[in-house]
Amino acid sequence: MIELEVKVPCTDLVGLEGRLKALGARHVEDLDQVDLYFSHPVRDFGSTDEALRLRRENERSRVTYKGPKLDQDTKMREEIELEVEDLDRMSVLLERVGFKPYLKVVKRRTVYDLEGMHFCLDRVEGLGDFVEMEYQGEDLSAGKEMIMDLKARLGLKGNERRSYLELLLEKG
Amino acid sequence: MIELEVKVPCTDLVGLEGRLKALGARHVEDLDQVDLYFSHPVRDFGSTDEALRLRRENERSRVTYKGPKLDQDTKMREEIELEVEDLDRMSVLLERVGFKPYLKVVKRRTVYDLEGMHFCLDRVEGLGDFVEMEYQGEDLSAGKEMIMDLKARLGLKGNERRSYLELLLEKG
Repeated sequence: MIELEVKVPCTDLVGLEGRLKALGARHVEDLDQVDLYFSHPVRDFGSTDEALRLRRENERSRVTYKGPKLDQDTKMREEIELEVEDLDRMSVLLERVGFKPYLKVVKRRTVYDLEGMHFCLDRVEGLGDFVEMEYQGEDLSAGKEMIMDLKARLGLKGNERRSYLELLLEKG
Repeated sequence: MIELEVKVPCTDLVGLEGRLKALGARHVEDLDQVDLYFSHPVRDFGSTDEALRLRRENERSRVTYKGPKLDQDTKMREEIELEVEDLDRMSVLLERVGFKPYLKVVKRRTVYDLEGMHFCLDRVEGLGDFVEMEYQGEDLSAGKEMIMDLKARLGLKGNERRSYLELLLEKG
């Protein structure tokens, strides 16, 4: 399973929401997400372009490993994710084996579905507003084409390859 | 919450089961347990006396960190444990961040409860049979006393401080 993500800054999420609905997009869910990123005991995740994240999303928690980006245009990377019983206990467990929580990303995410693609309208504390287009499937080139096409139809411009984590770290 | 464990080798688990029942012990459950132990990317868990374990128990999976033993007589140690959605995916996630699975412990565990204490009658592949007495609570000295008393009443002798993991490693 490949996940393609393209992220674009967006100063008018309300307008974008209208255009998505006009194209027939379906509102999927609203999520309150708190992400806790961990540093590795010896590896520099910044330079290896990996991440280990705990996420609390409304009532549920999960842990995610993100491998290095494999592609320049999109944000394709290996992602291993699973639900865990309790975010706080998982956080302590990771700390005991040498990982350290070093950044928290808090956002309100509104998700739309259009032609099987997910659009995440993100209001990120301290960073501003963005939209992430997500394709999940097994056909890389079809996914890329779909994203580029919908991006144009929605009047979206730009391409932010950096993660919220990287953007927050650069902001300091 | 403190957990005290005392483990004793036992060549007659069937006889012990009879003595437990005669004392009024209640059969709690039968468990098929598969434990997968991981090595740390840089720390030597053997010498720090820690462990990171994934356990599949019947249908459920969980991850456990065990801190160093804090006491010579019992096996008191910090334990952080939580359920995870999927053992295989958690195993891959750990491998991606540098942990390596290095030993598997397979056992059939029959659990009895007697006066709030748990007795685990363990048939361990490649090691033989043992009984583990477990006290969970907040009163360390009450727990110790309870264990020593029941051990004597059940005619149990010896004290195996090494974990199944250690015993299997020593066996090679």
